Amino acid sequence: MIYDPKDEMSYSVAIAGATGAVGAELIKLLETRNFPVSSLKLLASPRSVGKELTFKGEKIKVELLEPSSFEGVDYAFFSAGGGISKEMAPEAVKRGCVVIDNSSAFRYVDDVPLVVPEINPEDAKAHKGIIANPNCTTIVTLMAVAPLHREFGLKRLITSSYQSISGAGASAMAELEQQARDWSAGKELTIETQAHQILFNLYPHIDAFQDNAFTKEEMKMLWEGRKILHHETLRAASTCVRVPVLRCHSISINAEFEKPVTPDQAREVIAAAQGVVVMDDVANNVYPMPLDRQGIDEVAVGRIREDISCEGNGLVLWAVGDQIGKGAALNAVQIAELLVK
Amino acid sequence: MIYDPKDEMSYSVAIAGATGAVGAELIKLLETRNFPVSSLKLLASPRSVGKELTFKGEKIKVELLEPSSFEGVDYAFFSAGGGISKEMAPEAVKRGCVVIDNSSAFRYVDDVPLVVPEINPEDAKAHKGIIANPNCTTIVTLMAVAPLHREFGLKRLITSSYQSISGAGASAMAELEQQARDWSAGKELTIETQAHQILFNLYPHIDAFQDNAFTKEEMKMLWEGRKILHHETLRAASTCVRVPVLRCHSISINAEFEKPVTPDQAREVIAAAQGVVVMDDVANNVYPMPLDRQGIDEVAVGRIREDISCEGNGLVLWAVGDQIGKGAALNAVQIAELLVK
Repeated sequence: MIYDPKDEMSYSVAIAGATGAVGAELIKLLETRNFPVSSLKLLASPRSVGKELTFKGEKIKVELLEPSSFEGVDYAFFSAGGGISKEMAPEAVKRGCVVIDNSSAFRYVDDVPLVVPEINPEDAKAHKGIIANPNCTTIVTLMAVAPLHREFGLKRLITSSYQSISGAGASAMAELEQQARDWSAGKELTIETQAHQILFNLYPHIDAFQDNAFTKEEMKMLWEGRKILHHETLRAASTCVRVPVLRCHSISINAEFEKPVTPDQAREVIAAAQGVVVMDDVANNVYPMPLDRQGIDEVAVGRIREDISCEGNGLVLWAVGDQIGKGAALNAVQIAELLVK
Repeated sequence: MIYDPKDEMSYSVAIAGATGAVGAELIKLLETRNFPVSSLKLLASPRSVGKELTFKGEKIKVELLEPSSFEGVDYAFFSAGGGISKEMAPEAVKRGCVVIDNSSAFRYVDDVPLVVPEINPEDAKAHKGIIANPNCTTIVTLMAVAPLHREFGLKRLITSSYQSISGAGASAMAELEQQARDWSAGKELTIETQAHQILFNLYPHIDAFQDNAFTKEEMKMLWEGRKILHHETLRAASTCVRVPVLRCHSISINAEFEKPVTPDQAREVIAAAQGVVVMDDVANNVYPMPLDRQGIDEVAVGRIREDISCEGNGLVLWAVGDQIGKGAALNAVQIAELLVK
């Protein structure tokens, strides 16, 4: 959408968690997508207060995130962790602000819409002050699978993720980079933000373990998939793995459908959908890779083939999307764009 | 097995491809496992002839790999690529040598046994001169799944792999390390042995694409799984992905069984099996990771849980094994041990 300030409203916007990886991307996207911002407040914890960040060539000082911050604010993007969202989002709503929350704090609350604008935009309109932004891995997976669901009826999802360290925040990205430098210098590696070394390693543990031995991150695919697709009988089992990649998530997907579907039909349906591109030409070694998808809006889908292990109608797919972009900040800004449209 | 030279036969052994990553591991294992070696020939291409490698404290010069190399050799380990195996293994057999081949050249030939000693040792005895060593990812996966198959009857396997760069050989390992050093120094990265940058990247492409859009590496799970398990109706669909890890492969597994199976039963069955250990205590953040499994013989299995997406009897598992070890050299040496037992 192109914003022409002459003929549209503009809005007071705040970013809670402005100094994180997603915060930085939100500032960039509000600028590059020309969101109608009349004023921008950058909010963070005491540690970051006073830092200066740039929006449309103007320096903006980071302010303390507190309830009164939201006086007069129309839209607030929250990306400061679930605890802050739980505490501060209701304070913002009380003050008439609409919150788009990137944490998992409100995703499973019945009257909080959980929205991917290309999939369930109509849900956003029913908000009562808070709209939740889905989990990054859910977004990337559903961007590939939702168009197929509309045509062929999704029954079952099996996913294994290859999640970049950006999902753990800017400090975790810096830690992977520092581990590469320290390893190269023959120094001992520092492990601070994560439980394990991530350079030359990977681990099947993101977010807390649940009683059923899945992690919360793994359960999000089922919980959020059902809510976003309005599909209460969807079945899903995920394995979520952190890998030494900087900022794109990749997902290996086995999907089963009600109706027969060929790989050619799947390519056609995905290619016609918004926000997703087909990169699938194995004869020329074309498939999405995380390094190539950094900073690109569209989720890319490749390696589309028949699930030869499936007795029903199964496909195997490979989806890659920018975790900080479509997996977080871009999706949030798109939600705000829906609201001001 | 402990070899006591006083009361056992000993054998003339050759390694074809002695200077590669697997070759080096074979030399080490023949020594540490005290395989009854009377003489060891190290064979390679002209490029490596004259290099010296150490076995039991003795320097051995690398010789040219040619048909006559196998005169008087009892057991030859081949790890020099499929082309060399196809050409040279029959020459070795002609000269009375038994070949244990690490390439895929003979794996799908009907009268060539394909053996994982813990799973189908009896097949080794029926060899006609060549025994094939399975693909690394197949070995690691089946070490976890075969014990469950024996108890519960495996129907379907869905796997997504996280395969270390060691699977592409010693030069590819060196390339990942060099990319880390060059990245740290701010230099342009060199991409020589692989099609893509591997540092901070990954790609769903190992071995050649087949007509069905799976790679050959992905089809190996089905082809080899059926042969090793003697299970002609096994269904399997794999996605194989190269990741920036140095030498262990990880596999995310969804397995469906004929009979009901609980995670506790699965842990019990796997723990009782040879060559595989259970590392599954999520309350204490215990699960296998590739960095921790380097150089360890046993395949480790964790994250064992009910496949909540499965209408039948499904489990989700996470298996990690050393690609150079159990995925290649160790399995090959174990096959030879079966033969001399």
